[in-house]
Amino acid sequence: MSTDGQTIRCRAAVAWEAGKPLVIEQVEVAPPQAMEVRVKILFTSLCHTDVYFWEAKGQTPVFPRIFGHEAGGVVESVGEGVTDLQPGDHVLPVFTGECKECRPCKSEESNLCELLRINTDRGVMLNDGKARFSIRGQPIYHFIGTSTFSEYTVVHVGCLAKINPAAPLDKVCVLSCGISTGLGATLNVAKPKKGSSVAVFGLGAVGLAAAEGARIAGASRIIGVDLNANRFEEAKKFGVTEFINPKDHSKPVQEVIAEMTGGGVDRSVECTGSINAMISAFECVHDGWGVAVLVGVPSRDDAFKTHPMNLLNERTLKGTFFGNYKPRTDIPSVVEKYMNKELEVEKFITHSVPFSEINKAFEYMLKGDGLRCIIRMEA
Amino acid sequence: MSTDGQTIRCRAAVAWEAGKPLVIEQVEVAPPQAMEVRVKILFTSLCHTDVYFWEAKGQTPVFPRIFGHEAGGVVESVGEGVTDLQPGDHVLPVFTGECKECRPCKSEESNLCELLRINTDRGVMLNDGKARFSIRGQPIYHFIGTSTFSEYTVVHVGCLAKINPAAPLDKVCVLSCGISTGLGATLNVAKPKKGSSVAVFGLGAVGLAAAEGARIAGASRIIGVDLNANRFEEAKKFGVTEFINPKDHSKPVQEVIAEMTGGGVDRSVECTGSINAMISAFECVHDGWGVAVLVGVPSRDDAFKTHPMNLLNERTLKGTFFGNYKPRTDIPSVVEKYMNKELEVEKFITHSVPFSEINKAFEYMLKGDGLRCIIRMEA
Repeated sequence: MSTDGQTIRCRAAVAWEAGKPLVIEQVEVAPPQAMEVRVKILFTSLCHTDVYFWEAKGQTPVFPRIFGHEAGGVVESVGEGVTDLQPGDHVLPVFTGECKECRPCKSEESNLCELLRINTDRGVMLNDGKARFSIRGQPIYHFIGTSTFSEYTVVHVGCLAKINPAAPLDKVCVLSCGISTGLGATLNVAKPKKGSSVAVFGLGAVGLAAAEGARIAGASRIIGVDLNANRFEEAKKFGVTEFINPKDHSKPVQEVIAEMTGGGVDRSVECTGSINAMISAFECVHDGWGVAVLVGVPSRDDAFKTHPMNLLNERTLKGTFFGNYKPRTDIPSVVEKYMNKELEVEKFITHSVPFSEINKAFEYMLKGDGLRCIIRMEA
Repeated sequence: MSTDGQTIRCRAAVAWEAGKPLVIEQVEVAPPQAMEVRVKILFTSLCHTDVYFWEAKGQTPVFPRIFGHEAGGVVESVGEGVTDLQPGDHVLPVFTGECKECRPCKSEESNLCELLRINTDRGVMLNDGKARFSIRGQPIYHFIGTSTFSEYTVVHVGCLAKINPAAPLDKVCVLSCGISTGLGATLNVAKPKKGSSVAVFGLGAVGLAAAEGARIAGASRIIGVDLNANRFEEAKKFGVTEFINPKDHSKPVQEVIAEMTGGGVDRSVECTGSINAMISAFECVHDGWGVAVLVGVPSRDDAFKTHPMNLLNERTLKGTFFGNYKPRTDIPSVVEKYMNKELEVEKFITHSVPFSEINKAFEYMLKGDGLRCIIRMEA
């Protein structure tokens, strides 16, 4: 029986309140409207951003809400005006979009789509300002346009990357956020040369993906920096060759790195969001050619501060968002990097739980246990 | 009669004390030692850096000293080990060098030579730690390795660009410092595309050279920012299409520029050294692709400060030194840009004085009158 045009009843993990365990509920998922697509989610994974907005400390609380934004699924039906996708297509939902019409989308350089740029406060769809999820008439809000902790979700067509149907969705689902963010920060923005040195600040999933990018680019020294020494062993799998725990040194880590490398690394990638790590990541690159790339999202009141001579000595400071990938144009090629064995995705996946145990994924992340936990939607 | 190997007696403008008018004296110029070259200076010009160190406010005072670093001349004789140059070659002395042996010189990306990088405190030659200038046995100190306010000077071979002998030295002498700095900041570092928008902060010689670079690159909008509205008329000759005097606006100039350009300029070049202008220059570029380039030298205690989200929104911040030109490798090609009429040098030259009236050049600069004053060494 076709569900096209019908409301679908299915299971979703609803966050009723900030910080409280998710509850698996029967929700109603309305059909997609203009430029929207309804997707059957097969695998999703948990990212820090979900946890951050679920905790809602200092964030606008939008509840009840369905979180989730790293996922892989199959198109169930499409709304009016959608020509790029059809039922059966394999897709990765992405938390930021690509309308292909605005000036950033038309520029080769920017992925900051004016229409579909990430909006963490909006819990509704653009078309009518309403949620597509409900429980007995009560709207359940969306999260960053994806809400993948549901067997079915509705997503703007501009936030869906159509990928190779041969790609295993239980693996490549992790490419729709953090892994691509770190990988792209290195490959698209820092662009280390073969044989160069790269420092990576923060050895969580994003930082390890940045290290993986450096490994793929052929960097000869990859220096991992983290306050948690337990991460060092794991990081070796991602090409990290040397480790620094800033706690082990009395001098600033940028000075430690400068001494290790004859004046500084060629490239650095900052994946913690700590303002001090950002400053260290900038000041640890070599003058004349060093490039520092900021990935981690800072607190609202932080100020990046450095002596301008550090810039005049021909260093470059850049930031990136989603690894500078355009979701629809570029993410399919990241999946291909996995398919052709250039990119190793399996090592990011440390846990797997059935959908009914989704709260376990939150526990793993809150404990700092592992990198990515795959949540299997099928019963 | 050959002067090779002999001490030469000639005229030089000696700064005996900080801030006091230069005095034309007979000085003795020793022959060049290993890796040194003695150059007959034909034309020199005055740059702010000369005035800055002559005033010596907050700088290490090194007196008596012979200033001057923008110049053109002819090789008189060469010391031991010099194979790249011979008597009669036309050269531009440069305040920073290129040894061709160190890691930065061997890298394609850096012009920050480890051996010959600018040193404003050193008043002697590297080879023996002594000055080549003297008056009745009293050493007269060098300035940034060039000391071109003398009919003859001794320069390390690594600080001499050998140029096309057909190039008129009374014009191209200005290419050995400020003009190349501004031009290179735009052409080598900011790299605006054809049709793009560029903001230039500070419309002195360096800033106008940055604008000239934007004009050469085919920028369609060149927005000049200066606190002195008198500079706007002159700036039109350098391709500047629009002007902003920050004093005319109640809001920060970066907001004015964002409004004028639909979110920010594609590139900006900061040529004042004011920390507030640096911050404005960074914050006025468009997110997603904007590149800000810092050229102006800040005060010792300044801190560059911005919210890191300005970086995470995919802006790039870079600094440059001498327009990223390698003095020996690249400056000859800047002279060629003048020879093939791509670069217009004449419009930078607003005054000319004989050597005996060198103090007039200082007066023009202190009054902010004109851009470059050529000092003619021949009587």
